[in-house]
Amino acid sequence: MMALEGILVLKTFLFYEEDIVMEKIFENHRSMNEIRKHSKNKHTPDKIDKNYGELIFPHISDKAMRPYFTGSMILSMDGRMGFQDDPSSRTLAKANKEDPTRGMADLWMVNVLRTFADAIILGGATLHAEPEFTGHVYDPELQQYRLEMPGQFNPIPWNILITRNPENLPWQHPVLDTSEIPVLMVIPSDKMENISLCAGKNFCYQQVKIEKKSDIMKAEFLREDEEKHLVAVLPEKDFPDWTLMMELLNRLDIKQVTVESPHWIYELMQNKALDEIFATHTGVYTGGSVIPGKKQAFPSEEAPVSELVSIHMTGNNVLMTRQKLRYGNGKK
Amino acid sequence: MMALEGILVLKTFLFYEEDIVMEKIFENHRSMNEIRKHSKNKHTPDKIDKNYGELIFPHISDKAMRPYFTGSMILSMDGRMGFQDDPSSRTLAKANKEDPTRGMADLWMVNVLRTFADAIILGGATLHAEPEFTGHVYDPELQQYRLEMPGQFNPIPWNILITRNPENLPWQHPVLDTSEIPVLMVIPSDKMENISLCAGKNFCYQQVKIEKKSDIMKAEFLREDEEKHLVAVLPEKDFPDWTLMMELLNRLDIKQVTVESPHWIYELMQNKALDEIFATHTGVYTGGSVIPGKKQAFPSEEAPVSELVSIHMTGNNVLMTRQKLRYGNGKK
Repeated sequence: MMALEGILVLKTFLFYEEDIVMEKIFENHRSMNEIRKHSKNKHTPDKIDKNYGELIFPHISDKAMRPYFTGSMILSMDGRMGFQDDPSSRTLAKANKEDPTRGMADLWMVNVLRTFADAIILGGATLHAEPEFTGHVYDPELQQYRLEMPGQFNPIPWNILITRNPENLPWQHPVLDTSEIPVLMVIPSDKMENISLCAGKNFCYQQVKIEKKSDIMKAEFLREDEEKHLVAVLPEKDFPDWTLMMELLNRLDIKQVTVESPHWIYELMQNKALDEIFATHTGVYTGGSVIPGKKQAFPSEEAPVSELVSIHMTGNNVLMTRQKLRYGNGKK
Repeated sequence: MMALEGILVLKTFLFYEEDIVMEKIFENHRSMNEIRKHSKNKHTPDKIDKNYGELIFPHISDKAMRPYFTGSMILSMDGRMGFQDDPSSRTLAKANKEDPTRGMADLWMVNVLRTFADAIILGGATLHAEPEFTGHVYDPELQQYRLEMPGQFNPIPWNILITRNPENLPWQHPVLDTSEIPVLMVIPSDKMENISLCAGKNFCYQQVKIEKKSDIMKAEFLREDEEKHLVAVLPEKDFPDWTLMMELLNRLDIKQVTVESPHWIYELMQNKALDEIFATHTGVYTGGSVIPGKKQAFPSEEAPVSELVSIHMTGNNVLMTRQKLRYGNGKK
């Protein structure tokens, strides 16, 4: 990412059509009709329509008082996020030597989900593992779609980092150090003193202490002309308090969130708040114990049930699934 | 399982057509043609043909000097074999409240694979967890198919148990205590003295000590009229020596093996000997760490690659895959 004469040049990645070849092998018509019925924006951007097919999202009811959450992850055929000797998801994708796109189709799908997102929940580990990572749409055609829909999407989605240990973050990472990237950092109150809000940057983070709902209503942040860099300080107890989190996301007008951190995917499932998962299953076996949700087991009586909305295939051994999650007790 | 006036009555399980409804959503034609080309028996039993479609297996070349191995397992959408609070695969299958067959379609597929098997590799843990388990075809229609093909299949496949700790086996379990079930137990030489070959049974196990290939050729076991209960004692070092194992299986005329133990599925993959996996992915998320191959990680450079041969679906959230495995370095 570079700034040229004050104009931000976003890192781009060209996804040619031959790199993102996929074929839909299954569609759940009942489920798609349900989504159509509850969708406000029924337009699928051209490039997505051409390569993936219709992709729209239900408008979550105002009663839900929270954004619509989609998770995105790549897993091996045996459900691992990576190899024991190299846990990165890119290595996993590339180990599949029969994937004709060498992981590009999966990477594009991550970008497709970002296209519809007001915010991206990242994991702290990602920043450490990927020094060039930023949470924006790498595909210029999809980015153009965001820009042509003013009022609906900001150019760059909020990059959200929820962390108990902000002192361990790599503060020189582009996500944390680029003035044009809106960042919402969420930390517990006992770590408030440990972070510097301006150090080494040409901008400062605005810190907002939140102890109860009314603090969010009252807070005077985010005047239209301001850069968006927030540190939300939430109570240490039960961090992060999801009732306060949802309220904060609403206040920031965040209506759809793509969750790229496996940890927060499982945490949102435990809170019955993850609406969908887009999972790529790539055709390799890894063995080992690099798995998402290792310490976030569900009791057998309360396992989230996944309904397949659609399945796409790339080559003969990459499955890309769209899954709607359902939770027990009638809650969603 | 009961013996009535000397005639063995096998435990049966009726699989009605409405319990095993599945739809093929993908077939890899190139892969199927390859299988057809190398298949000797091109006949699919009627019930399988009607509900699943064509199911034939390649005849493994004599040069391979080993049987054809198919693995069978059920996994959650996130690749777990079970829940942290209840690791049994039946609980996993039943936790999927949207599976219209409540796990029956998956259980039937296990029986389908047994139909074609000269032997089943079981895990010791299965015996402990499932007191009523036996390794035979529960579906009477499929069992009839085995019986009508004399010379090709014995009525009951060999039940194979490979264990470093035979002293821990539940010796009163029906698998180990039913004279009509052929059993091949494989133990290391240092445990030879620890097991009793006749105790409490109306039959005895024949013990065969194998230190080298020629011991297998020379051994005088399995005269046609004898019951088949063998304890093969293999060297303690590098137990089990797979070269000796394959030789032993050849000598016993075992040409196709279905592997139902996750541990041995991964061990055979590490030996580049597992030919196919039939994996059911049932639509629940479990989290936790009940995973197959946890301590059997593959290096990222040597991950087995899986090619999908076919995918069947039951309802909207059960995927049943047939996968052909490929290993690096041109070996299979």
